[in-house]
Amino acid sequence: MKVAKTVREVRSAVADARRAGARSVGFVPTMGALHPGHYSLIDAARRGCDFVVVSIFVNPTQFAPDEDYRRYPRTIEADLAGCEAHGVDAVFAPAAEEMYGAGSCTTVHVSGPAEGMEGGCRPGHFDGVCTVVAKLFNIVAPDVAYFGAKDYQQAAVVRRMAADLDLPPRIEVCPTVREPDGLAMSSRNAHLTLEERRQAPALLAALRLGERLLREGRADACDLADAMRRHIAENAPLASVDYVEIVDPVTLASVQTIRGAVVAALAVRFPSVRLIDNMRMDPSPAGR
Amino acid sequence: MKVAKTVREVRSAVADARRAGARSVGFVPTMGALHPGHYSLIDAARRGCDFVVVSIFVNPTQFAPDEDYRRYPRTIEADLAGCEAHGVDAVFAPAAEEMYGAGSCTTVHVSGPAEGMEGGCRPGHFDGVCTVVAKLFNIVAPDVAYFGAKDYQQAAVVRRMAADLDLPPRIEVCPTVREPDGLAMSSRNAHLTLEERRQAPALLAALRLGERLLREGRADACDLADAMRRHIAENAPLASVDYVEIVDPVTLASVQTIRGAVVAALAVRFPSVRLIDNMRMDPSPAGR
Repeated sequence: MKVAKTVREVRSAVADARRAGARSVGFVPTMGALHPGHYSLIDAARRGCDFVVVSIFVNPTQFAPDEDYRRYPRTIEADLAGCEAHGVDAVFAPAAEEMYGAGSCTTVHVSGPAEGMEGGCRPGHFDGVCTVVAKLFNIVAPDVAYFGAKDYQQAAVVRRMAADLDLPPRIEVCPTVREPDGLAMSSRNAHLTLEERRQAPALLAALRLGERLLREGRADACDLADAMRRHIAENAPLASVDYVEIVDPVTLASVQTIRGAVVAALAVRFPSVRLIDNMRMDPSPAGR
Repeated sequence: MKVAKTVREVRSAVADARRAGARSVGFVPTMGALHPGHYSLIDAARRGCDFVVVSIFVNPTQFAPDEDYRRYPRTIEADLAGCEAHGVDAVFAPAAEEMYGAGSCTTVHVSGPAEGMEGGCRPGHFDGVCTVVAKLFNIVAPDVAYFGAKDYQQAAVVRRMAADLDLPPRIEVCPTVREPDGLAMSSRNAHLTLEERRQAPALLAALRLGERLLREGRADACDLADAMRRHIAENAPLASVDYVEIVDPVTLASVQTIRGAVVAALAVRFPSVRLIDNMRMDPSPAGR
């Protein structure tokens, strides 16, 4: 497994692979602190592509000044061992100066699907995400890029950006991987206190409650969101809710009356860490 | 010569060329109404690359609502004949709907070099330019892209964007091509009235005056700009000056005291059309 620190090194690793006959390059962009959710993306890339590149880069521009950039978990040795074990061909792990040179002043901005939810709570977040993902796509030049459904809005925004800027890679979104009690895997879970960790499954339970109510015929999105908020308040008293939203799966526009598939997405702040989760749901059990 | 109307067609023309052994693809993005300035870029691409792609697309997003999008000259038949005569391999001439599909909402924004001069006078202009150039680079995937020095700020902004987003093509800037009396070639010159056309050489004359004063030891940028403004006022009374700026050649930051190479750039509005021009100049005749 090649570990590249520079743009030049990773480009040359990919070019070598293509010259050697690799017909498809799969790419998994990460911020490291890899967990089974990331490895499910890597395994999907391994199954789908001849050459697999993983980037590990805690991107400063997608954190607001008051956010957790400094204390974001960093576990590079374990990450490299995990990548090796999962058959990754090349890891791109640049320093911030390699990605953002002197005078750098370009941003990629998506409106539409980037505006609500995380975009509303974290100003500038998606500009940072879109800019670094566009850069990584241009550096690695993959055929397929893999994103996790846990960050549903991020995947939708990246898909929109890739379509709008004619970025070549196909975007694959893989299912959320969860702990046995339902908590979505996230690098940030490491920051949860024991009591917060005990309450955290309330997020998925709230989403499941929403799905059950929807299938029972409750079509008013406000009603559903209220019920989900109450569930969190009762079962995760340490959490304060940033949002519970019911949105169109593609445009992420708010839905008032639910007539087809929607995504319910939520974010809560525990004292130690902010968590997000989401679920695609449909009024009829069989899907659309 | 292949004429492609869709992204798919032009991508497949480039892919076919690469499969057939083309080692380098040169790209000249244009808004059509091709003149000798464009053909000098095409000729440079022809000399430098195995396969030459020209795009012809009057990009609506780089015109403000009050600007000349509708009356921008369109001469597609002559343009295609000219491309054929200059040995172009493929022309990409998409409709606006092919470039901006439903729901499209992504923009590429450069601050720094895009902020003054044209960026100040034409709000949103460079967002439109950068977004369409990023798209075209992603569609055509050239090795080298050619821009004219007449749009000096545009070339500097595109160079900045390409570096910041790790866009692969090398950016080549080719010298401004001029009419015998010094007027910089521009598709918009077609809109000049006879009297405006008679006055238009005052732009280059003002730049040459600035250069002469600089070489005589006048290092104060305000003095130089004032002298250039006066020259235009006296010799092109129909023109009103949008700006005369003396800037750093790379960052385009305003220069107060000229100690090395600078670019003098100006824009004037005639009643019929707005014109720009610029000149790189240096205090010592031999250059830096």
